[in-house]
Amino acid sequence: MAVNLAAPDPARIAAVPGVELGVASAGIRKAGRRDLMLMRFAPGTRVAGVFTQNRFAAAPVQVCREHLAAGSATRAAIVNAGNANCGTGPRGLEAARRSCALVARALGCAPREVLPFSTGVILEPLPVERIEAALPECVRSLSPSAWTDAAAAIMTTDTVPKAASCKVVIDGRTVTVTGIAKGVGMLEPDLATMLAFVATDAALAPELLPALVRAVADETFNCVTVDGDTSTNDSFIVAATGASGLAEIADAASPQYRALAAALTEVAAALAQAIARDGEGATKFITVEVGGAATRREAARIAKGIANSPLVKTAFFACDPNLGRLLMAIGNAAPPDLDPARVNVHLGALRVIEGGGRAPSYREEDGVAAMRPAELSVRVDLGRGAERVVVWTCDYSYDYVKINAEYRT
Amino acid sequence: MAVNLAAPDPARIAAVPGVELGVASAGIRKAGRRDLMLMRFAPGTRVAGVFTQNRFAAAPVQVCREHLAAGSATRAAIVNAGNANCGTGPRGLEAARRSCALVARALGCAPREVLPFSTGVILEPLPVERIEAALPECVRSLSPSAWTDAAAAIMTTDTVPKAASCKVVIDGRTVTVTGIAKGVGMLEPDLATMLAFVATDAALAPELLPALVRAVADETFNCVTVDGDTSTNDSFIVAATGASGLAEIADAASPQYRALAAALTEVAAALAQAIARDGEGATKFITVEVGGAATRREAARIAKGIANSPLVKTAFFACDPNLGRLLMAIGNAAPPDLDPARVNVHLGALRVIEGGGRAPSYREEDGVAAMRPAELSVRVDLGRGAERVVVWTCDYSYDYVKINAEYRT
Repeated sequence: MAVNLAAPDPARIAAVPGVELGVASAGIRKAGRRDLMLMRFAPGTRVAGVFTQNRFAAAPVQVCREHLAAGSATRAAIVNAGNANCGTGPRGLEAARRSCALVARALGCAPREVLPFSTGVILEPLPVERIEAALPECVRSLSPSAWTDAAAAIMTTDTVPKAASCKVVIDGRTVTVTGIAKGVGMLEPDLATMLAFVATDAALAPELLPALVRAVADETFNCVTVDGDTSTNDSFIVAATGASGLAEIADAASPQYRALAAALTEVAAALAQAIARDGEGATKFITVEVGGAATRREAARIAKGIANSPLVKTAFFACDPNLGRLLMAIGNAAPPDLDPARVNVHLGALRVIEGGGRAPSYREEDGVAAMRPAELSVRVDLGRGAERVVVWTCDYSYDYVKINAEYRT
Repeated sequence: MAVNLAAPDPARIAAVPGVELGVASAGIRKAGRRDLMLMRFAPGTRVAGVFTQNRFAAAPVQVCREHLAAGSATRAAIVNAGNANCGTGPRGLEAARRSCALVARALGCAPREVLPFSTGVILEPLPVERIEAALPECVRSLSPSAWTDAAAAIMTTDTVPKAASCKVVIDGRTVTVTGIAKGVGMLEPDLATMLAFVATDAALAPELLPALVRAVADETFNCVTVDGDTSTNDSFIVAATGASGLAEIADAASPQYRALAAALTEVAAALAQAIARDGEGATKFITVEVGGAATRREAARIAKGIANSPLVKTAFFACDPNLGRLLMAIGNAAPPDLDPARVNVHLGALRVIEGGGRAPSYREEDGVAAMRPAELSVRVDLGRGAERVVVWTCDYSYDYVKINAEYRT
């Protein structure tokens, strides 16, 4: 189902000094399936995160925000699949806090040093006693090399586990960045969540980490859209353990900072693209690039407008070079002072729209050929500035409707 | 296909004194199908309109805006189906102007007194010579009673013609309001257009008409959404002929104005609902009502958020009471200071969400039963104010993907 996306090779996913991972079957998702994942971080690890903007933020998201706002180090993350612990009121908050307390007791740290994450059915109470029962197995299985097991344990209806890793040499020291993510998939009768956990053994001044995580998210996870719907549980965290021995990076203008940011962005981009490749019912992976914009904001609005248009997405599924739909989607999202006569559009290498109308060189058979590959790009040039944004998405197929409509029949 | 929508009974669609309609086969859409429609208005008729906000506004939309801005009376509207005359540059503008000139010559008026409308394939030159050839047939067939023929002639892939009519007595005079519309349907390989033409024999001071049309549109056509995509050609006009003999309405605070506004809104609402009932692949007609809002703007944003969410729309198709998706859609569109604990949601008469969580009285079997009818309502109470907005939409079915993906195969 996923577009050009294979399960990660465990040999290529490097351990991150200072991070161990453990998994267990808690019976929250399906009996016998691993659905609980614990990450333990070395003392002094700093974590920052970005979370859903949905007003019904799930209980674990609320607790994560509290714990990160407290400013202390982070020693663990606990993640369950099968239940989102969302729309569950004060009892849901209590359940999220209780799972932090259980982890804190098991690992010998404070509850506020634990971050909770949940993905799955919403409006159902979280069976925290099942987390309690399975936690010892998670702790026993903690290992620095369990990244791909962890990626599999957090899946819901993802069809492929998602992990990415890179190494970068900074000041003669090798720094590792490794991450896992789960994407947009239905869980039994419910909705999608994006979760991503990235760790590095670099050390970063605590005050720099939140802005770095936001910047990385803006270039990566915020560029993915499957259907424009934002889950109540979406979370992305970066943990910096400092175990590489490289001196703490404390200057956001330094080459060290830029090298680390580039490595984090590389791993996060690979995870973000994997989520789009494994979008519900996806048959095509589509890169939408909007350039020549006056601002990043207008470029992003148009790129998302194209990527989320059901009419554009069904045309991609049909391999149909439906230029009118592209024009419509651009026009709907464009600023009021856009000059249509300056707009050019390419499908892959093929120029299709020129000066706001069909390119004189365009031939329908070339358009059909350009739409056929499983990986496509749409490039829009607005002709009004130098800003540029890229968004990754997938098409809408019968299977999108099937996955989202038919699980009861 | 359409949900509880029958073809209009010509006997129930009242003629509007001062308006005649004629139709012809121009061969722009399909050979032998009527695809050209002419409306002739009595001298002194005033017209105002609202048009697409898409930045790639089609050539006829640009010409309509010019002609209405000139402030003169309007004597005719010429409408073709089969070609949108959009993305066609200066030649497209020339073609729209040429069709106005042809009508003006045939009817003996000025070109600026003619409004052009097009719906159909975009990025294709408008074959204006076919309009020229068929125009005499349109003129010959002009008749006050041809409203339902006219409704059929402007269809693209609408499955049912759309017309509505009402009469209201003001100051002892009977005033008629009749309108036709076409909705969201694919035309051969292209996109949807909403066109609506409403006429009344009331007389309205010219300076009051534009605001009245905008107000009626806000309560009716702007409350319809099928897939969130706005066509390049969307247009809604109201023509006031003054032929009823009722004195000109010149005071927006008068009971006469309110009576006319109510009648226009009734007809426009019927047409707007007909468009949603005939949405592509629709199996359900859904009314989304968001109340208890602090502002109309926040209510509209949330109502549209629910109505456009692909996850919500596929759940309606599946008759699945997927409360989590409703919560997600509300939360995505809600203002940052929404208090989830004050949010209640009903499906029809059934309370499903209470205080931001599942209602204690909720039973799954009741939810399934509430989702089964072909007409459904979702009522959201935000618990933060007195404003309220209603939006009409339809579900996403396999046929939505089929209609939008498969016309080439």
